[in-house]
Amino acid sequence: MQKQYESLKLIKVETLGDFVYKVSLNRPSKFNALNMEIWKEIGDCFRWIDEDPDCRVVILQGEGKHFCSGLDLGGVSFLNGDNDDKDSARKGREILKTIKFMQKQFTYIDECSKPVLLAMHGYCLGAAIDIATACDVRFATKDAVLSVKEVDIGMAADVGTLNRLPKVVGNHSWIKDICLTARHFSAGEALQFGLLSRVFDTRDEMINEVQKMAKLIASKSPVGVQGTKNVLNYARDHTVENSLNYVVSVKGWVLLYKRFDRIPWHCHPEIV
Amino acid sequence: MQKQYESLKLIKVETLGDFVYKVSLNRPSKFNALNMEIWKEIGDCFRWIDEDPDCRVVILQGEGKHFCSGLDLGGVSFLNGDNDDKDSARKGREILKTIKFMQKQFTYIDECSKPVLLAMHGYCLGAAIDIATACDVRFATKDAVLSVKEVDIGMAADVGTLNRLPKVVGNHSWIKDICLTARHFSAGEALQFGLLSRVFDTRDEMINEVQKMAKLIASKSPVGVQGTKNVLNYARDHTVENSLNYVVSVKGWVLLYKRFDRIPWHCHPEIV
Amino acid sequence: MQKQYESLKLIKVETLGDFVYKVSLNRPSKFNALNMEIWKEIGDCFRWIDEDPDCRVVILQGEGKHFCSGLDLGGVSFLNGDNDDKDSARKGREILKTIKFMQKQFTYIDECSKPVLLAMHGYCLGAAIDIATACDVRFATKDAVLSVKEVDIGMAADVGTLNRLPKVVGNHSWIKDICLTARHFSAGEALQFGLLSRVFDTRDEMINEVQKMAKLIASKSPVGVQGTKNVLNYARDHTVENSLNYVVSVKGWVLLYKRFDRIPWHCHPEIV
Amino acid sequence: MQKQYESLKLIKVETLGDFVYKVSLNRPSKFNALNMEIWKEIGDCFRWIDEDPDCRVVILQGEGKHFCSGLDLGGVSFLNGDNDDKDSARKGREILKTIKFMQKQFTYIDECSKPVLLAMHGYCLGAAIDIATACDVRFATKDAVLSVKEVDIGMAADVGTLNRLPKVVGNHSWIKDICLTARHFSAGEALQFGLLSRVFDTRDEMINEVQKMAKLIASKSPVGVQGTKNVLNYARDHTVENSLNYVVSVKGWVLLYKRFDRIPWHCHPEIV
Amino acid sequence: MQKQYESLKLIKVETLGDFVYKVSLNRPSKFNALNMEIWKEIGDCFRWIDEDPDCRVVILQGEGKHFCSGLDLGGVSFLNGDNDDKDSARKGREILKTIKFMQKQFTYIDECSKPVLLAMHGYCLGAAIDIATACDVRFATKDAVLSVKEVDIGMAADVGTLNRLPKVVGNHSWIKDICLTARHFSAGEALQFGLLSRVFDTRDEMINEVQKMAKLIASKSPVGVQGTKNVLNYARDHTVENSLNYVVSVKGWVLLYKRFDRIPWHCHPEIV
Amino acid sequence: MQKQYESLKLIKVETLGDFVYKVSLNRPSKFNALNMEIWKEIGDCFRWIDEDPDCRVVILQGEGKHFCSGLDLGGVSFLNGDNDDKDSARKGREILKTIKFMQKQFTYIDECSKPVLLAMHGYCLGAAIDIATACDVRFATKDAVLSVKEVDIGMAADVGTLNRLPKVVGNHSWIKDICLTARHFSAGEALQFGLLSRVFDTRDEMINEVQKMAKLIASKSPVGVQGTKNVLNYARDHTVENSLNYVVSVKGWVLLYKRFDRIPWHCHPEIV
Repeated sequence: MQKQYESLKLIKVETLGDFVYKVSLNRPSKFNALNMEIWKEIGDCFRWIDEDPDCRVVILQGEGKHFCSGLDLGGVSFLNGDNDDKDSARKGREILKTIKFMQKQFTYIDECSKPVLLAMHGYCLGAAIDIATACDVRFATKDAVLSVKEVDIGMAADVGTLNRLPKVVGNHSWIKDICLTARHFSAGEALQFGLLSRVFDTRDEMINEVQKMAKLIASKSPVGVQGTKNVLNYARDHTVENSLNYVVSVKGWVLLYKRFDRIPWHCHPEIV
Repeated sequence: MQKQYESLKLIKVETLGDFVYKVSLNRPSKFNALNMEIWKEIGDCFRWIDEDPDCRVVILQGEGKHFCSGLDLGGVSFLNGDNDDKDSARKGREILKTIKFMQKQFTYIDECSKPVLLAMHGYCLGAAIDIATACDVRFATKDAVLSVKEVDIGMAADVGTLNRLPKVVGNHSWIKDICLTARHFSAGEALQFGLLSRVFDTRDEMINEVQKMAKLIASKSPVGVQGTKNVLNYARDHTVENSLNYVVSVKGWVLLYKRFDRIPWHCHPEIV
Repeated sequence: MQKQYESLKLIKVETLGDFVYKVSLNRPSKFNALNMEIWKEIGDCFRWIDEDPDCRVVILQGEGKHFCSGLDLGGVSFLNGDNDDKDSARKGREILKTIKFMQKQFTYIDECSKPVLLAMHGYCLGAAIDIATACDVRFATKDAVLSVKEVDIGMAADVGTLNRLPKVVGNHSWIKDICLTARHFSAGEALQFGLLSRVFDTRDEMINEVQKMAKLIASKSPVGVQGTKNVLNYARDHTVENSLNYVVSVKGWVLLYKRFDRIPWHCHPEIV
Repeated sequence: MQKQYESLKLIKVETLGDFVYKVSLNRPSKFNALNMEIWKEIGDCFRWIDEDPDCRVVILQGEGKHFCSGLDLGGVSFLNGDNDDKDSARKGREILKTIKFMQKQFTYIDECSKPVLLAMHGYCLGAAIDIATACDVRFATKDAVLSVKEVDIGMAADVGTLNRLPKVVGNHSWIKDICLTARHFSAGEALQFGLLSRVFDTRDEMINEVQKMAKLIASKSPVGVQGTKNVLNYARDHTVENSLNYVVSVKGWVLLYKRFDRIPWHCHPEIV
Repeated sequence: MQKQYESLKLIKVETLGDFVYKVSLNRPSKFNALNMEIWKEIGDCFRWIDEDPDCRVVILQGEGKHFCSGLDLGGVSFLNGDNDDKDSARKGREILKTIKFMQKQFTYIDECSKPVLLAMHGYCLGAAIDIATACDVRFATKDAVLSVKEVDIGMAADVGTLNRLPKVVGNHSWIKDICLTARHFSAGEALQFGLLSRVFDTRDEMINEVQKMAKLIASKSPVGVQGTKNVLNYARDHTVENSLNYVVSVKGWVLLYKRFDRIPWHCHPEIV
Repeated sequence: MQKQYESLKLIKVETLGDFVYKVSLNRPSKFNALNMEIWKEIGDCFRWIDEDPDCRVVILQGEGKHFCSGLDLGGVSFLNGDNDDKDSARKGREILKTIKFMQKQFTYIDECSKPVLLAMHGYCLGAAIDIATACDVRFATKDAVLSVKEVDIGMAADVGTLNRLPKVVGNHSWIKDICLTARHFSAGEALQFGLLSRVFDTRDEMINEVQKMAKLIASKSPVGVQGTKNVLNYARDHTVENSLNYVVSVKGWVLLYKRFDRIPWHCHPEIV
């Protein structure tokens, strides 16, 4: 495993062999609540994995009793701030930059070329769902408790859940129910309405099964696997016609490069 | 409650306190069949609610034995009309205007900034589903009977169901089944396939539970609630990337206004 | 029934009366594996049906023990080919053309103006799912076995499944599960997660029920039925606002033609 | 000419024969400055013309010394208003409704099925350009003086110019120059950079030539003319592929209606 | 040069050496009016060129006195046809297929991976402009006479001009002028308003200069040239952000293939 | 002026007073050729300006004899690299990251909330045009020499020109001419075809006039100016309808925040 992962303090990266990595939120004393440091490390980690030839599939989970208790309100100070003082313009700018940063860190999961399998247990609250919707496959134990907290935090906290939920879950009546009430819901309910695709009795069973699945995926052609994630995400956001064309267009470019990229030609330096 | 609602004849608007309104289709002798008058009142009502500071969440339901038996064929005369007489050009124009009007009235529900919780019972046929798909959260009693009637009426009646169903329900095989056959289906089936998110044994239980939910939503930050509905609807219709940008862009504008809208500058009157 | 269908060798087209056609994959000795010949016939068949006034609804199924065992690897030679010989440029072009062709043949099902009801049984593997996602309503027997095979074949085989699945099935966690593992799954699982809308105990029961449904659809107004399929497919790929406008815009054009297309005017031949 | 036009007070509608209408801003004492009344009349007028079988093409111009001196600041009171008083929430709502209204009135010109030829002279300032960009063909006399005033008024006044200019004029460097400075520019400059397509020496010559052009257009097939405007506007806002498909799709629908709309079928009244 | 081009009867394909082809409309006795045969040959020719490794750039021109006098009304019989007879349904279908075919043949020019330089002279009427807008670079002699004929033919003839003009010419006022009047205009006017980029005094000078330009382009890297055409066309139809992403996405796929496409993996034949 | 600008080594930032900044490429000994360092500084600079309350408008120019001679081929080593060695996978990843970085740095100009006025002189080659298309208003001296170099460098160098040119210049025939040939063209030609909006005789005159224009813009309402740039850029990439809605939607959010953001509500800390 590459050295860079050792620099992470609140994220733990382990290799399970066979091109499978396990990534763990590792701040169990705070129930893996997300402060700015761990937020940054999540993005760094998935950018590195994106380029890491030793990894072909990722399992994401949380250390300790809970997957993630959401935003660490103590660790994201601006949310409690007073916007009315003299310095509010500067502060406004800071908030805007922070929100962009928070969005982008989770988008690295979504854009990571390798599939990310999520295994949740215990509390999965607020920002935990922002993470979850950016993953590819979502599992949980039957005692997991989930909730979407945007209506409690105000719009400042919107970093992905509201944008991705209507794309990845088919029952919009249920989406609006959980998003407008911020109520807790169970893994079973999440499975019934389409947020999860499997619920396990115990955490051990879950980890065991997800590892098997990860190894199966890692045994497949990387072009096939990464191409499949890429096209499914593209299709989520485009018309059927456009995503069919996208596939053909990409293949056409690959052929163009194959044919011509060894033909020598001159780069004309400009002003000599 | 604002006076304007008293002018409505076929719609009843009541306040339940705590910023919750109950809106009822109120033509029970006709099973709340929709004629042009009630169609107009639905749009008026939700436009007013959109701007009404005393309302933060709406419960929509039907008075009497049924939520809504659909289009009142006697009250929407053009549908039986003969298109072949000399006057057909004028008539064609009238139909076009009527369809636009009918679409728009239900779109006011979709665009209303306040969440709309739908509580259906009994017959929910044809245009009732056009209404339902424009609401945010959909509930029904277990004895409710639903159907989509576009194939029976011809295209003239398409005022929202076909446009919204593929967005708000994930199982497209089922959507095409119910839309192409116009068959009746039960609340249970609607729950299973994703049109509803909860089914209640009795109407009383439903109203009771929906009120609790409405009060919970009304107790939340209005910026959070209205922003959540707005972003979820935006996300339904745009790519993940675009809706993430939308959130950032809106926040940027809010900051821009905050910073500058008290700085005096001159409006240069044109020709003096 | 029109004569052209008799020219098909691996596809069987039968009329069930009342404007209902039954189309069968008819290569039972190979479990209806798809070679280039049957691929071509599928497209031809649905293009003809699109224009055939005697057909208003189609039942699609497979003869023999299985609906379709997927790509006939022996019959699509390029997939095993060596890309490194001198002739690879020409070969690359051939592959690109073949993929476009393979996509297009199944898109004729999607674009066919008449609804296509799919009745699957036995193995439904790989390309069978590409077909399935292009149909309108999907049924299977309870012993059907399905799988998505793109990760095994490499990207070369992507001819519709990855592009359509995220649009027609709401649970994206499950979509990624089945697409990234290429594992087999049952009809029951497909029903639970939204790929099918009904599962039958036996093939006879399925065919019987699907015929009833087909006859019901064929008894409806063809404008209503074909318009409904058209608008639902349009809505799948566009915003709610755009598809509402689409309906109005089309009606406007129809009226424009009605009003003016009998008024004589001159085609000015250019150079005389 | 239909009677409704006689109800207009600040707009004058005349027929020039041969299906050509002349519409004039008619508030010469105020240099045709736009108050809310004339704003409303513009929208009403073009909605009526859209449906008026006696009109196939429109000439739009201004009475008196100038085409239009822009927003009548005295007549649109909110723009000078104080937003800080207790009543600002209500006032904010009013402003929002007013802006939507102002946008929509000019969009009726853009959406009018009949071509609108614009003949400008003298001052053409601010809101005059909002009108101009919504017209189809733009002409002016050589002494016309134009300017885009959004940066002077603040965003409150954005009712079409900024949205349409980048679509209808190719030189974006020039667009930003005139929009960011709000400077006056001549008809000659507008012709050079693509906002106009012809400049005339005198107003008489302009009116004369525009009338000839209007009569020529009115002599063509209405299906051809209205279809041409419709497709050009559609193409402005969509990809080449989508607008090619739009044309085919519309023709398909027209054929579908032609084939089936005389076949009798039953509208099944629901509850009898 | 490949043999297939010799089968063309109304199109002449010549090689000018150095990877440059000259394609000529070759029906001078009819001023290169387009009948269905030549229409078909245009599409065939550009599909072949797209795949022809001996061609890197194309010059398109017309033999004889004129580039192209437009649609051969005698050769496209349906346009004069009577739609009211018993057989109109079948006829309607035929028209629809013909329009799709006519659109597609010219789209092959647009989609051809090699740049197409157009050199027009004499009459360039109607369908000639449909061709012109599908080309990459447009030149003409100063005595060329152009016109857009859609309003004269009715919508039936819309095969590309209306869809492409608003994308490739910036002055929309002028576009609507020429499209709504169907008037003739000169090469000089076309240059001024943005349809052409150069006008030559004589045909000899034009051919000479265009050949020089073609040879210059053919001397450049084919990846650079074909990539440039591809990205410019993509950018024409997408947002700046999407086309920037498109470039990165394509490069990512090329790298993915480069890295993995020699790693052996197993294609699992399904049922053995 | 804020201190951070002093850290820039190859970019010079000066304040001209009145909220106007002058930004200069400052590597005159290399004719302002762009290496990775200056590339980075350009992005940093415009990100800082975006947030700098002391700046409302920017003038961008180059020190020394030329605005910018394009890519410093010596300073962007990967472009000459050999892709065939063992390490090519890692190298491929590096190239991809570099291209994203190069695109993004120029996009900061496009996305900068303050208008950027470009004043070019001398050589403006290759990457100089990538910069130019990201600016808002483009000027040059009459002796400026411009060219687009993508076809000479191969696709690796595409960092904005091909994506933005078809949006900001109306004559696509000319765009393809200059992009496919990589030929030099004059400021006069760039003005004629729509890339520039003004050409000056001397550099002094240009700087003088651009300063006047900058001061004029800086004297306007910042909400108006920044809103105008924002909406024009949005309109460039969206339909007319969407950008009209965007304006209304943003105003609605501003009002929502105004109304509610002082109402206290509770952030419910999750696990206490």
